[in-house]
Amino acid sequence: MADFDIAIIGTGSGNTLLDDRYVDKRVAICEKGTFGGTCLNVGCLPTKMFVYSAGVASQVADSSRFGVDGVLAGVRWPDIVSRVFGRIDPLASGGEHYRRSSPNVEVFASHTKFAGNAGVSGYRLRTEDGDEFTAEQVVIATGARATVPPAIADCGVAHHTSDTIMRISELPEHIVIVGGGYVAAEFAHVFSSLGTRVTIVLRGTTMLSHTDDTICERFTDIAGKKWEIRSRRNIVGGRSDDTGVALELDDGSTLHADTLLVATGRVPNGDQLDAHHAGVAVQDGRVVVDEFQRTTARNVFALGDVSSPFQLKHVANHEARVVKHNLLQDWDDTDALMRANHRHVPSAVFTEPQIASVGLTENEARAAGYRIRSKVQDYSDVGYGWAMEETHGFAKVIVDDDSGLLLGAHIMGHQAASIIQPIIQAMAFDLPAQDMARGQYWIHPALPEVIENALLELCGEPPWPPARRH
Amino acid sequence: MADFDIAIIGTGSGNTLLDDRYVDKRVAICEKGTFGGTCLNVGCLPTKMFVYSAGVASQVADSSRFGVDGVLAGVRWPDIVSRVFGRIDPLASGGEHYRRSSPNVEVFASHTKFAGNAGVSGYRLRTEDGDEFTAEQVVIATGARATVPPAIADCGVAHHTSDTIMRISELPEHIVIVGGGYVAAEFAHVFSSLGTRVTIVLRGTTMLSHTDDTICERFTDIAGKKWEIRSRRNIVGGRSDDTGVALELDDGSTLHADTLLVATGRVPNGDQLDAHHAGVAVQDGRVVVDEFQRTTARNVFALGDVSSPFQLKHVANHEARVVKHNLLQDWDDTDALMRANHRHVPSAVFTEPQIASVGLTENEARAAGYRIRSKVQDYSDVGYGWAMEETHGFAKVIVDDDSGLLLGAHIMGHQAASIIQPIIQAMAFDLPAQDMARGQYWIHPALPEVIENALLELCGEPPWPPARRH
Repeated sequence: MADFDIAIIGTGSGNTLLDDRYVDKRVAICEKGTFGGTCLNVGCLPTKMFVYSAGVASQVADSSRFGVDGVLAGVRWPDIVSRVFGRIDPLASGGEHYRRSSPNVEVFASHTKFAGNAGVSGYRLRTEDGDEFTAEQVVIATGARATVPPAIADCGVAHHTSDTIMRISELPEHIVIVGGGYVAAEFAHVFSSLGTRVTIVLRGTTMLSHTDDTICERFTDIAGKKWEIRSRRNIVGGRSDDTGVALELDDGSTLHADTLLVATGRVPNGDQLDAHHAGVAVQDGRVVVDEFQRTTARNVFALGDVSSPFQLKHVANHEARVVKHNLLQDWDDTDALMRANHRHVPSAVFTEPQIASVGLTENEARAAGYRIRSKVQDYSDVGYGWAMEETHGFAKVIVDDDSGLLLGAHIMGHQAASIIQPIIQAMAFDLPAQDMARGQYWIHPALPEVIENALLELCGEPPWPPARRH
Repeated sequence: MADFDIAIIGTGSGNTLLDDRYVDKRVAICEKGTFGGTCLNVGCLPTKMFVYSAGVASQVADSSRFGVDGVLAGVRWPDIVSRVFGRIDPLASGGEHYRRSSPNVEVFASHTKFAGNAGVSGYRLRTEDGDEFTAEQVVIATGARATVPPAIADCGVAHHTSDTIMRISELPEHIVIVGGGYVAAEFAHVFSSLGTRVTIVLRGTTMLSHTDDTICERFTDIAGKKWEIRSRRNIVGGRSDDTGVALELDDGSTLHADTLLVATGRVPNGDQLDAHHAGVAVQDGRVVVDEFQRTTARNVFALGDVSSPFQLKHVANHEARVVKHNLLQDWDDTDALMRANHRHVPSAVFTEPQIASVGLTENEARAAGYRIRSKVQDYSDVGYGWAMEETHGFAKVIVDDDSGLLLGAHIMGHQAASIIQPIIQAMAFDLPAQDMARGQYWIHPALPEVIENALLELCGEPPWPPARRH
């Protein structure tokens, strides 16, 4: 039985841990699927490539109001798929090849679980292929997986999740998407922009229901105009035949379509580790970690979707940097260990219009007892938004009236995920909203002016002289 | 002869001065042209609307590599012009109507100059229509104007400047653009994207020669592939006939085209004020101002392009806010007067690829004696740039190795004018580059990651624990 210094289970953010400081460590890397994890293979990167093609198609279709007669003559779905995976798959296999060629690394290419304690050698691990080894330190980075409601899984109807939908061979004429979260919103945008009819089945009444109310309401309103939304409905059964799927809804109706995409959420993979053999606590599938990314078992760390409520790649990357540092410290030396920072975690939905958020929603801010000011600033009020006739776009900014600090921002519209960054930065460094508005230049006529204007509406012109920092 | 408290000459940023604090002032507003100034009528706003249409057209034409068969069936130039000026012209006339309906404001709709001193009444002003009045305080906000080289102006060949080119009745088949600055670059993009053949005549060898060398070289390289560039050439004469223009170059060749656009720069309008009658010093057409926007004549302020070397609307807006405050203070009370802040003025060129800059160029930083680190980070290295196959895009970031502060950034590529904003903010608030990189989340996979990566390459991972601000 081989003995390793470190075992890393999962090769998404887990695969970013090893740097020069680790060359003398014997490392086991365990991956049951493809190297690169969710982000590279079935998440952020391929979806954004599809989203980009979809955006090009919708721009072509929407060109005439700008005096440009673009005609959408066709969409080559197989070429879109090839563009995406022709670039991604080599990256994934290249990542594996690189690890296999590292002299201090051994790759175990099957599902790996804890098998027990190994005393001074740390933990025993066992792969599904029957290999067993020990590791003094273990990093759990096994991510999360798409869920399928039992009614769909059990009835045997053919269905896709985000794991498979991007590799289908033909563009569907009609797709049913179950769910109303960011995965549903992004794929609805992708398919509808490419010409597919989209029907969304929602348990509730709104899409993106975890976002700020203004985003949630306005996006649902736009979605309802582009896509057929069946709200307050559940799928209770269904069957597949040569023509596609027939789905039974709980209102007694039947929905026919070519393709079914289930986008009802993701659950962490902590339940698949036999974590109890190592004393690693797991709650609802999520590995429990403290602020140092330590699990409840000595010398076992976890990071990313398997242990994080955020399920965001930038959070996993941050946690990976924390673990990368902490693996080299003494487990108990909390002065030397790095703390994970989960303040002000932003997120984006790359649908159309694009959405980005950071901090508290207006309701959360009120519920937390803040005296707030909030402003919804339309894109069309600033030069660039006006030039592009952006009718939906807005930025909602929420400020604490007592401290003058930003509490949150929620943006829907062109470049939302980019123009939110100065707000993330201001929140991270406690820059007061008024200083942010007037202490810097905002390029005219660039889109970030919508942030400037929202802040000015909230804060007014600053008193003179403002607090000087330099 | 009417007596006013304040005369404002020019209605660009000059027209933003009056707020509630001015309702008891008698104000003369003088405008020889159209209300709204350069930005609204012939600058930022209409150009960005043309640029947006051009971007749509180029996106249609460039769709196939994304698996989308967009066909550019045509371009309706008259509709593009109508979209722009059908929205802008009402704003300009609405602005004038609003001022004319203000009880404390009188509008003088002709060219207005100083006529002399008026003792306690301040200054005598005279309009070209023959009106004379006095004003205790005067604000000069008369902007700048496009220049035409004498060889072109004198030979009688029909030519356009940015003042007129946007209202031509037909899209030219072939346009010659003289000049290589931002106006030339933006219109070359507009016309070539809409299908016009573009020839650029350059006195030097590069376009955008005032930008950082990396921008200048790479943009010139791209420009040379899209447009025909005749460098080291001057136009020495020419004539117009029914078919267009025939231009004589100093290499003896003749250049035929439909249309000639002269984009050789803009000069401040300080020479058109008879400023000597008021004791207002003017140098090379530019009204001399101090840090409080005070001219050399008591109670006469100036702002914007007529007095600023920047010739940027966001600078003019800032100076207008300074003057708006200072008009209400005692001229000599420098503790009460607001200072204009011209640190870290960013700028953008809305050509394709888009360009944005702030701070020092690499050469300027070296010349100023800084020990610098600089990094050119390609867009294609980050998820979103990779998804869109951005092959040109890059961000160059320059950091002072001694202080760790940012000295400048120069970005060329998609959304450049938006993703530069966090750097502007960091520079304005002296946020060290390393803190900026690691003290905040950067949404994955959004385009600002290119900034994050550039900063990390420059600064490395931060030491632990980093300096804490909260």
